Amino acid sequence: MTQSPEELVEAAQNWWSTDIIDIHPGKIGVRGYPIEQLIGRISFPQMIWLMLRGELPSADQASLLEAALVASVDHGPHAPSIAISRMSVTCGLPLNGAMASAINVLDDVHGGAGQQCMELYRDIDAELTEHGHGPDAPLAEADAVAAASTVWARWNERGVKYAPGFGHRFHPLDPRAPRLLGLVDDLAAKGEVSGRFATIGRAVEEAISAGRSRRVPMNIDGATAVIYSELGFAPELGRGIFILSRSVGILAHAWEQTNQGGRIKGPMTPKIPYRYTGEPRRDLPDADPSGTEGRFFSFHSAAAPSDPTDTESA
Amino acid sequence: MTQSPEELVEAAQNWWSTDIIDIHPGKIGVRGYPIEQLIGRISFPQMIWLMLRGELPSADQASLLEAALVASVDHGPHAPSIAISRMSVTCGLPLNGAMASAINVLDDVHGGAGQQCMELYRDIDAELTEHGHGPDAPLAEADAVAAASTVWARWNERGVKYAPGFGHRFHPLDPRAPRLLGLVDDLAAKGEVSGRFATIGRAVEEAISAGRSRRVPMNIDGATAVIYSELGFAPELGRGIFILSRSVGILAHAWEQTNQGGRIKGPMTPKIPYRYTGEPRRDLPDADPSGTEGRFFSFHSAAAPSDPTDTESA
Amino acid sequence: MTQSPEELVEAAQNWWSTDIIDIHPGKIGVRGYPIEQLIGRISFPQMIWLMLRGELPSADQASLLEAALVASVDHGPHAPSIAISRMSVTCGLPLNGAMASAINVLDDVHGGAGQQCMELYRDIDAELTEHGHGPDAPLAEADAVAAASTVWARWNERGVKYAPGFGHRFHPLDPRAPRLLGLVDDLAAKGEVSGRFATIGRAVEEAISAGRSRRVPMNIDGATAVIYSELGFAPELGRGIFILSRSVGILAHAWEQTNQGGRIKGPMTPKIPYRYTGEPRRDLPDADPSGTEGRFFSFHSAAAPSDPTDTESA
Amino acid sequence: MTQSPEELVEAAQNWWSTDIIDIHPGKIGVRGYPIEQLIGRISFPQMIWLMLRGELPSADQASLLEAALVASVDHGPHAPSIAISRMSVTCGLPLNGAMASAINVLDDVHGGAGQQCMELYRDIDAELTEHGHGPDAPLAEADAVAAASTVWARWNERGVKYAPGFGHRFHPLDPRAPRLLGLVDDLAAKGEVSGRFATIGRAVEEAISAGRSRRVPMNIDGATAVIYSELGFAPELGRGIFILSRSVGILAHAWEQTNQGGRIKGPMTPKIPYRYTGEPRRDLPDADPSGTEGRFFSFHSAAAPSDPTDTESA
Repeated sequence: MTQSPEELVEAAQNWWSTDIIDIHPGKIGVRGYPIEQLIGRISFPQMIWLMLRGELPSADQASLLEAALVASVDHGPHAPSIAISRMSVTCGLPLNGAMASAINVLDDVHGGAGQQCMELYRDIDAELTEHGHGPDAPLAEADAVAAASTVWARWNERGVKYAPGFGHRFHPLDPRAPRLLGLVDDLAAKGEVSGRFATIGRAVEEAISAGRSRRVPMNIDGATAVIYSELGFAPELGRGIFILSRSVGILAHAWEQTNQGGRIKGPMTPKIPYRYTGEPRRDLPDADPSGTEGRFFSFHSAAAPSDPTDTESA
Repeated sequence: MTQSPEELVEAAQNWWSTDIIDIHPGKIGVRGYPIEQLIGRISFPQMIWLMLRGELPSADQASLLEAALVASVDHGPHAPSIAISRMSVTCGLPLNGAMASAINVLDDVHGGAGQQCMELYRDIDAELTEHGHGPDAPLAEADAVAAASTVWARWNERGVKYAPGFGHRFHPLDPRAPRLLGLVDDLAAKGEVSGRFATIGRAVEEAISAGRSRRVPMNIDGATAVIYSELGFAPELGRGIFILSRSVGILAHAWEQTNQGGRIKGPMTPKIPYRYTGEPRRDLPDADPSGTEGRFFSFHSAAAPSDPTDTESA
Repeated sequence: MTQSPEELVEAAQNWWSTDIIDIHPGKIGVRGYPIEQLIGRISFPQMIWLMLRGELPSADQASLLEAALVASVDHGPHAPSIAISRMSVTCGLPLNGAMASAINVLDDVHGGAGQQCMELYRDIDAELTEHGHGPDAPLAEADAVAAASTVWARWNERGVKYAPGFGHRFHPLDPRAPRLLGLVDDLAAKGEVSGRFATIGRAVEEAISAGRSRRVPMNIDGATAVIYSELGFAPELGRGIFILSRSVGILAHAWEQTNQGGRIKGPMTPKIPYRYTGEPRRDLPDADPSGTEGRFFSFHSAAAPSDPTDTESA
Repeated sequence: MTQSPEELVEAAQNWWSTDIIDIHPGKIGVRGYPIEQLIGRISFPQMIWLMLRGELPSADQASLLEAALVASVDHGPHAPSIAISRMSVTCGLPLNGAMASAINVLDDVHGGAGQQCMELYRDIDAELTEHGHGPDAPLAEADAVAAASTVWARWNERGVKYAPGFGHRFHPLDPRAPRLLGLVDDLAAKGEVSGRFATIGRAVEEAISAGRSRRVPMNIDGATAVIYSELGFAPELGRGIFILSRSVGILAHAWEQTNQGGRIKGPMTPKIPYRYTGEPRRDLPDADPSGTEGRFFSFHSAAAPSDPTDTESA
């Protein structure tokens, strides 16, 4: 039961084990490649892919990933992540701290739509495969729409009301989505990606718009979900890569705010007060002298200060 | 559709509305009470309760909450939250930053057992009420064990393997649990709390230990879950209050590390290397000259640097 | 040079060493005290003190610390920390995440005034001691004011414009400050604290108000700085303890927002747009065909999409 | 003094103003460019530059930035940022949370060397300019070394002991540095960058190695500081861009840990205990019955639990 020092050192080493990076004095290998061979020869998106997947992507795969990275960098100060980044620097945080507080909120609701959309596509992909429309043959649009309707009905029953990746509270048509989808189509035409998830994505739009007077168009999250799915990323990495992209906007806004200055900047100009909706002003009761000694602590015997505002407000 | 400036200002004010605090020049009211009446007259746990619940607790309620707050402050540097706090200060973070990075990880797995245990108790409470054993009458132990078994079997089917709040990978008996439960019993005897959740908690221990050679005893999370449930807190606040408590340990360790010094302190002494388990060292292939211009970026025509370690290692 | 497995295990153990907590199966000792003896017998502020300082405070010391903890819990949704906490939950974060993003911003500007004020008091304390007014004798008000003026002039020269802990952009008189100072006076009268820092704090108010038409009164940070200094805490812990207090407000607002609902809630109602002050809309130039292949990446040969808004806006 | 609703709405709009992004229904402009024109046509490093600087870089500038982004992605699990990322996911955090806790620690000590090195270079640049060696003429190595010695001596006097960006506790020669510097030389030869900061960087190495038996070579931070300085970034953005790069490693390790599994993973295997160096086990004294009622709180009259471990350990 007790372990020898040798076994303990072995256990300590194993506690931290990784396939990603190998470091020795003067030598750094990333996924096996000497770092000095990678620097200046592969692109940043290729490095992102290598780190996450273990092997290098083709040029076309990297280009598609790059387009998605470019597309999602920012959506302005009304986005909580961006606002938090800006507010943070006015509190004294350096860029790392501002980025941390902001990236943290890219959670299920604010940063998770892409991941959820990838899960939706994956369910539809599985539904299709199960019914004989596997990835080996081209996918007919009608089959995709039928599967999308089935799966979406199932999600609906489970309580999901809005299809993640579709519709936008602000944009009638998100200008990023058709552009991204067009790039997927280009690569599908070249045979570099299958195009299966572009078909599935469009089928979801068809399925959820059926019977509505207004189409519910694919948005940025739906389009990047097509791209990440085409490229074989796991849904969780849909969120992870989105964060790498949005980090650029978070940094740029933190930096702009640093230059604008401002101290302890709240969400609204202090000229507009917030709304208090709670209890009206009331006095703290005296501690009950009978048996509740503990209720108020040691200072309680001191005379309670009278409310200095009573006269004022009278 | 377009709104008047008056309506917009109204909307801005409503955007931030709260029952908690009312502030005017020279006046601060917390849940209606003038702040200067609260200072020095109510205890910190009473203030915590007032902020979270809207009204003041009795002395006994506050004492029970206080005992739980005292119990959970720390579990040493093997806890990731504590280790992260210490590592953070060696990276240059001030105390606020160290606390933020550490508190962040008190998530479902590391900080959520208490909340999950409260949900388990609540399910058992509902099961009992549904079968005629509502909160108005004393709860018989046998009824509680039967309901606990039923509910636990249901959780098991849903895939939950370990009862949150019970068992400990380190302590055969967690010394905090019986002490906390004893305090609940004292107040139940005085009629200050119902004792219903203490009975339910013990019933869970009974139910999950049935048929095992070794009992699975209630741990700190199971015991504080009893307390928070007795006091009427929502399960989410079980996690919230735990964080207020553990923050003390996180701060104390950050401060101790500040005084110990150390820079960029990793998880283990650098004398013990981590284990690399990935691809062996390999050369980056040259870019394919035919039609894949994009594969490696603009510097790719430069001769690839030879691996300087090849000779060394040869 | 190479170390034996025994030495490595020793080094690993030493890597994480602490005076704070000792844990063995079934035994938890905090600063030497068995945890089950502390639970239910010491107050939460006493536990905070024990964790940070190593020994238990007297009842009066704990009461004074408690008053400061009660005083600082909240300052409403215009405070960035509180706003961030509320925005975070609308992004999907659980309470731990909301608290982390919010606590993180309690940095030099938003959470550091108390710490800076303690440093100011400490400088004045040292100035006094150096000129023969050490802590062993009662401190005359005039001596304190003289030293405060000297030290403040020095800070001014170093570029500090506003005395940390004095004045308030909102409150003409912060109602928390005189109440806290009164509690210090009570304990000084009892001989439980020296009262030296209360005198120093008041002397700063005198010194910085000299020659002004309106007094610059001590605020909450100046008053808690008096308390923490009287109690012997290091300036950094002034910030640390403030965070423990403000965490309560951060949690309460996160919880209120959870119950209010709302998704991806930005800083202002979306009805009020932010102000764009940058470059007017412009077309991306085509890549220069001569020798700048690398400028735009692989898709660049595709015809640039025309700006779909051109017609609209024409 | 009181403002009209129109003025308040105006103030609210101005509260959030930005040069970065302009958003209207169906239209998103980044620094004036329609987003759909940027997607698929500019690279991710070009987008990073556009967001931070306001205009697009040349292809060569973007390539140099890209090389630096590729170089800094990871330095293995002994780096606190990477370890924290991995520990975080074992606590239940999704990728955004793990990244936030980790990025937060890229502060002055762990993530600030590049920024500090840029400040050092900038000081030397100013020293040179002041002495007639401005940026308009080529910089002689000897002049650079003289200025570097002067400035470094000044930093030394101010208490800086180690030159940020030089030397490495692990690598005798950091394999990333010469490769990055070589890329700068290539572009300087083409006239795309001035090469001034490469000369300054090498001069620092010369100056700080003078009189030492072993050279203190430029490391990754010193080399990326050369690049960011050549490209005209502010020192703070040296840290900011480093974070964009290291985020990739933080994400990749979080993802690998997600797949490895593990729960509440501390810094070391639990088989190796940490070292307790504090007070030996001791009993909590009884509350002093005379006049110190407040010392221990309401439960204190209950008999103190005897230390259950006393017998054990006896």
